[in-house]
Amino acid sequence: MTTRLLSLALAYLSITGMLLAQKPPTRIVDLSYAFSETSVYWPTAEGFKLNADWEGLTDQGFYYTANSFAAAEHGGTHLDAPIHFAEGKSSADEIPLKRLIAPAVLIDLEGKVGDNADYQISVADLEEWEASHGQIPDDHILLFRTGWGRFYPDPLRYLGTARKGTEAVAELHFPGLHPQAAEWLVKNRKIAAVGLDTASIDYGQSKLFESHQVLFKAEIPAFENVANLQQLPRGGYEIIALPMKIEGGSGAPLRIVAVFR
Amino acid sequence: MTTRLLSLALAYLSITGMLLAQKPPTRIVDLSYAFSETSVYWPTAEGFKLNADWEGLTDQGFYYTANSFAAAEHGGTHLDAPIHFAEGKSSADEIPLKRLIAPAVLIDLEGKVGDNADYQISVADLEEWEASHGQIPDDHILLFRTGWGRFYPDPLRYLGTARKGTEAVAELHFPGLHPQAAEWLVKNRKIAAVGLDTASIDYGQSKLFESHQVLFKAEIPAFENVANLQQLPRGGYEIIALPMKIEGGSGAPLRIVAVFR
Repeated sequence: MTTRLLSLALAYLSITGMLLAQKPPTRIVDLSYAFSETSVYWPTAEGFKLNADWEGLTDQGFYYTANSFAAAEHGGTHLDAPIHFAEGKSSADEIPLKRLIAPAVLIDLEGKVGDNADYQISVADLEEWEASHGQIPDDHILLFRTGWGRFYPDPLRYLGTARKGTEAVAELHFPGLHPQAAEWLVKNRKIAAVGLDTASIDYGQSKLFESHQVLFKAEIPAFENVANLQQLPRGGYEIIALPMKIEGGSGAPLRIVAVFR
Repeated sequence: MTTRLLSLALAYLSITGMLLAQKPPTRIVDLSYAFSETSVYWPTAEGFKLNADWEGLTDQGFYYTANSFAAAEHGGTHLDAPIHFAEGKSSADEIPLKRLIAPAVLIDLEGKVGDNADYQISVADLEEWEASHGQIPDDHILLFRTGWGRFYPDPLRYLGTARKGTEAVAELHFPGLHPQAAEWLVKNRKIAAVGLDTASIDYGQSKLFESHQVLFKAEIPAFENVANLQQLPRGGYEIIALPMKIEGGSGAPLRIVAVFR
């Protein structure tokens, strides 16, 4: 009887499994800011520019519109490829897709970060989260919510400065991941990628970008300026983070969504 | 007994279902060409340009590289948003995500197209495919393989001309979807989006881009210059086609993949 029950259950499952494979997602949450003149870029980088090449009726009598655009790789919702801070590591076009399409967990630190623009997510923060919610699972994308997304795209509140140019870099203030926490993740866990709701994995006052260096040496890419993280629960969904496939790119505009199935 | 069996099967399924939701894809096929100087653009459009802003050691002693880039919206593997040929319809940032992440079917026409650079996929082609393989299912992404992908990125063979400028447009020769087939799809089926392995939904010799007009009026977006379609079977996978989220964009660079679960 047990055997018969099991085989019936398995048959049922295999039929359902086939149906599941063709089933559309139940819900998709867009975690990407749109690219426009207000997109947030590093003070030293060129912002996003759209040029209307045509808009309106053509001589042949039909409507047509098309644009050209230009930007730095690192602005708006974007990918940091490992090569950005680690020589010889993957560029934007080379990152294995299994790091970009994977189940995810979100560590929500809004309460701890509060209004502290110099907050760095610590090893203790990671250990405390795991004590409550279990170990960060292998091959998952790890998302951090600092709450800073609420200031996007106001550069003064989101970055700490609205000025442009090299001198403005010293004025950057926003939360990030402490280099020791990055080290801890690389040594103790096996994450696919990291993402967060600030302009950079390292906090605004970082001078050496050590969290970038540590993660990227381990081929772990980063997603920056991720939007709408307040709409995500702690887990139970897949993150799909597809960058523009720029050959040799150190980064790229990123379309990132959460899919519930 | 039947009730007990069913409830046991359902319990088993619900546990397995939870596990399935967290399971990574079994296989992912990249259907996107990388953006580089050789990316194929329309003769009248600006090609892709990458500018190295920095590459090498910084004054602080760590490695760093970053670039800027520029391009027309419509080149390489890209999205055509409905607004491209249909006033008031969705721009690149407005397309519902359920049209971009959906199960798909592939209609392989390589054998019929052969070397005919002026081939137009007809209503008869659609009906013949359905007679063998069943009706194109609702809310699926519909992919066409003409076989033209084998010529990418050689502009002379892929587009029919290697010249640039308005005069070169008359020299364009590549397969596409006949406007009557576009009409038939809009009237008789409920597709999420279309994609193909040529530079445009309308064939190279089109003057009025009627397939664009018909599909876009119905809010059906198009994916052009889709790569690696020879790697896909007829169905049983999900297409994920995420464009750069350009506010008001008539199109955008597109990262498109097929996911087997």
